[in-house]
Amino acid sequence: MRNFKEEKELNILNHSCAHLLAQAVKQLYPDAKFWVGPVVEEGFYYDIDLGDKTLTDEDIAKIESTMKKCAKDGKYIVRKELTKEEALEMFKDDKYKLDLISRMDEEQVITCYTQGDFTDLCRGPHVESTKLLKNFKLIKFSGAYWKGDSKNKMLQRIYGVCFPTKEELDEHLSALEEAMERDHRKIGKELGIFMFADLVGKGLPMWLPNGFLVRRALVDYITNKELAHGYKHVVTPSLGNVELYKTSGHWEHYQEDMFPKMELDNEAYVLRPMNCPHHMMIFKNFLHSYRDLPLRMAEVANDFRYEASGACCGIERARAFTQNDSHIFCTPAQIESEIKSVIDLILEVYKDFGFENYEFRLSLRDKNNTDKYFGNDELWEKSENALRNILKASGAKFYEEEGEAAFYGPKIDVQVKSAIGHDVTLSTVQLDYQLPERFELEYVDEHGEKVRPVVIHRAILGSLDRFIAFLLEETKGILPVWLAPTQAYIIPVNNEYHLEYASQVYEELKKQGFRVELDDRNEKLSYKMRESQIKKVPFTLILGDAEKENKQVSYRQIGSRDTTTVTLEELINLLRK
Amino acid sequence: MRNFKEEKELNILNHSCAHLLAQAVKQLYPDAKFWVGPVVEEGFYYDIDLGDKTLTDEDIAKIESTMKKCAKDGKYIVRKELTKEEALEMFKDDKYKLDLISRMDEEQVITCYTQGDFTDLCRGPHVESTKLLKNFKLIKFSGAYWKGDSKNKMLQRIYGVCFPTKEELDEHLSALEEAMERDHRKIGKELGIFMFADLVGKGLPMWLPNGFLVRRALVDYITNKELAHGYKHVVTPSLGNVELYKTSGHWEHYQEDMFPKMELDNEAYVLRPMNCPHHMMIFKNFLHSYRDLPLRMAEVANDFRYEASGACCGIERARAFTQNDSHIFCTPAQIESEIKSVIDLILEVYKDFGFENYEFRLSLRDKNNTDKYFGNDELWEKSENALRNILKASGAKFYEEEGEAAFYGPKIDVQVKSAIGHDVTLSTVQLDYQLPERFELEYVDEHGEKVRPVVIHRAILGSLDRFIAFLLEETKGILPVWLAPTQAYIIPVNNEYHLEYASQVYEELKKQGFRVELDDRNEKLSYKMRESQIKKVPFTLILGDAEKENKQVSYRQIGSRDTTTVTLEELINLLRK
Repeated sequence: MRNFKEEKELNILNHSCAHLLAQAVKQLYPDAKFWVGPVVEEGFYYDIDLGDKTLTDEDIAKIESTMKKCAKDGKYIVRKELTKEEALEMFKDDKYKLDLISRMDEEQVITCYTQGDFTDLCRGPHVESTKLLKNFKLIKFSGAYWKGDSKNKMLQRIYGVCFPTKEELDEHLSALEEAMERDHRKIGKELGIFMFADLVGKGLPMWLPNGFLVRRALVDYITNKELAHGYKHVVTPSLGNVELYKTSGHWEHYQEDMFPKMELDNEAYVLRPMNCPHHMMIFKNFLHSYRDLPLRMAEVANDFRYEASGACCGIERARAFTQNDSHIFCTPAQIESEIKSVIDLILEVYKDFGFENYEFRLSLRDKNNTDKYFGNDELWEKSENALRNILKASGAKFYEEEGEAAFYGPKIDVQVKSAIGHDVTLSTVQLDYQLPERFELEYVDEHGEKVRPVVIHRAILGSLDRFIAFLLEETKGILPVWLAPTQAYIIPVNNEYHLEYASQVYEELKKQGFRVELDDRNEKLSYKMRESQIKKVPFTLILGDAEKENKQVSYRQIGSRDTTTVTLEELINLLRK
Repeated sequence: MRNFKEEKELNILNHSCAHLLAQAVKQLYPDAKFWVGPVVEEGFYYDIDLGDKTLTDEDIAKIESTMKKCAKDGKYIVRKELTKEEALEMFKDDKYKLDLISRMDEEQVITCYTQGDFTDLCRGPHVESTKLLKNFKLIKFSGAYWKGDSKNKMLQRIYGVCFPTKEELDEHLSALEEAMERDHRKIGKELGIFMFADLVGKGLPMWLPNGFLVRRALVDYITNKELAHGYKHVVTPSLGNVELYKTSGHWEHYQEDMFPKMELDNEAYVLRPMNCPHHMMIFKNFLHSYRDLPLRMAEVANDFRYEASGACCGIERARAFTQNDSHIFCTPAQIESEIKSVIDLILEVYKDFGFENYEFRLSLRDKNNTDKYFGNDELWEKSENALRNILKASGAKFYEEEGEAAFYGPKIDVQVKSAIGHDVTLSTVQLDYQLPERFELEYVDEHGEKVRPVVIHRAILGSLDRFIAFLLEETKGILPVWLAPTQAYIIPVNNEYHLEYASQVYEELKKQGFRVELDDRNEKLSYKMRESQIKKVPFTLILGDAEKENKQVSYRQIGSRDTTTVTLEELINLLRK
């Protein structure tokens, strides 16, 4: 996807197109008043006061064709400078413009731009003539409160995009369509994975039966893998005393991303945004010898973060989520081998999922804004170098980015390229000398001295919710067999003759631990097969006379039109793979 | 256990013994001032101001022997009536008694009791003479703030018990010892099941690696059983908008058991005490036909309740816990068969755990306090009768108890008798016409009409945490093989000769999915065997020359001194059973 805000040429073009939109709206609705019309990452929009009018699809079509006409007119877009006084006079009947102008400095040069009979207050720059605004499209529209405040009037917001060429516009529109097709919110709804309800709350997903099965398979997968790699799992509560977060530093550095506190008796509790403090307290509860290290503590943990309601996006970004988290407590000498083995584990998991398009990012602190971080320059230098050296030694492809570190230490993030071209951070490894210090963690070293361990924070799948959102978008909902909510969909060709055999196959597959569905409704074969396809079931079994007679099963894999006939045992082996 | 408060004779005896305690303390510490000395369920206590003195074990022994002496003296306990004025004069130097007297009515007859040189303000009654107070024991002591307020002075609280006969006292003391031995907090700590930390918060358990393994086995067990019985699992967030709980009625009827709300943007959220409202919202999100019912929605759900810090008890009663919960949405005609199948499921599970000592309790509403409940008399009558009839038809042994219903409907609770004689409610089935009404739930019936479903709330294991506490106390920590954190503990007789074979056995058992530990430390065989016993591992494998040569394993089951030798395959079959 193009970034309309960052690409300079696109930015100017789209900003001019916002004026074209306003010009057309003014022609159609002479009483329209205009608030702001900025360029954002995804194109331009304009917030317009149309009185009590709420736009419809027909209105938008009319606006679009009026815009076409205005563009054809090919008026020059003329810039004019004004003093603040002149500007206040010029827009004296427009409360929105007055609001903007009144907040400008006296000395500021104010400009307005005119195209034909339409003039708008604007900083510019613009293209020379509306003739250049040929390849545009209005994408969507919605209500938007003035200044984003629900106490204010609801304005009409219209989004659009504009490109220099028709080819670019077409490419963009089909990419948008592709993204919409892949949108996990759409797929999640179609497949019965999750839902939201206003009464439950914004950003609080509820996982439906199919979603539960996907989550369970994923949690089992990563838990078993971690247990096999020597991790010890724990289960800790989703809240803690505020004092815990004062000790960890979250209260100072992360509070604005947290839920508000709850006063209880004479204490205050708060929902946790991360699990680190709980894990520190478990480590602290026991005596440790260097012989017990590394101690790899893991948890599939429920966390809560305050996200602005506009920032919430399905299960990709929610206020309640579940993390595949771990903290490795180790000696300084073990840092390198432990981080190396985390990276190996990440690569092993990515291989299981078939992810091939990813890069490592070394996330450093912002050197111009060190207040945001704990600890001194020397320690940061040391930690950042340690991670850099490990990445270099591993031979992995990586790049560095300032300002992406955690407040307690630098990170190695793994950036996976999504099917629609986004960079998504799935996994992360973080080096931390700070929390062991703040929690006064200790172990007894080879010399009998009490010393501080180092903590490595790491997440492989990251947020399970976001990971599932990612998987749904990558696969368009066609999950691998081991994750699919229903693995095989069994259709008797004719209920009267084949239901008994179909039931036998169903029971056997269930007994073998597979998630199967038997469609015994009195519907046509083609109807049932379409149903299996809509549900994105990997294997559709069609059982008729031949199958019944030969004790075989015929199957179609999703996305294929080929039917293959095998024994039930062969099918079971296939499913197991 | 006897109930000292409820049994009248025991109550009087123990109250008199509290005076005996005070008399002895006064002799030893002439400046002692006395606050209150009530009888509670577990015996008597007295709160005493001893200035800056903190009691020690030696002090308690001395007090006990002084009490013995006072009892031998056998003074009569003499009652005297006073006016409030006289009482105020009599205790004018005692701020504690003045505090008590000043809050009494003018007209009230105030009494005091004298035994020898000791007089105490008291309502009585008492036994006739201190001679009857022979069979007592001081059980424990601690600090206690005056009036329970941490801003007040810390008093010394001494607990004790007194019985008519020595036999009863001995029996009680050994029962106490047994209960202490079985206390899940003690066993949970010894086995590394869970821990608490003040900085995390009161009543917020953290499950340690061994606890995780037990929980996981239990969650898998009940989830698989429910899936096999046609339940659909969901995962919903641990909080909700306050409006959700206003709709459900929890805000009105259950708020004092909930955490305080969190204000967010212009809304308020609250941690959930139960999952019902979330499940109602999932049902409400879809269109349902009578053909889709019953819909059995289940969740292993994290809930939060406000418990007074004094009421928290390990994982038996905590502020954060996990429920094995379900809501069955059904037609009125399905109520009976659904409740019947829930009862069957309960019995199936109890059989798996070997529980045999239980009774069904029909929990009715308190007819004298109907304000606490939703709905009208007729509906309650109907629901209570429905449950009564189901219980009668099932032939199960049951009794009825008023005041134990949920605010939305009557319940069938299953009361299991614990090893130390407590009645524990493990499972519950509840009939609910109210929530479907409040959430306006609907399905389309046979006639195409929209009608309300009925909801059956049910929990089998109840709170997983409390269930595990119960299991630990019942089994003294010797969990069944399938739940034990470590199922087999492998000991090579001599590391030099047998470690290689032991490692092979270890790897094979791990590959088969068992939780095994290999003790390869350079310690004596007997030391390692003791370790396995302390950890309550069901199978201890001892591998020496003979085993290595014959490719066999020798094992001891916990609690047995017999060693059995079998092939590895035979062992695997044994473990699997």
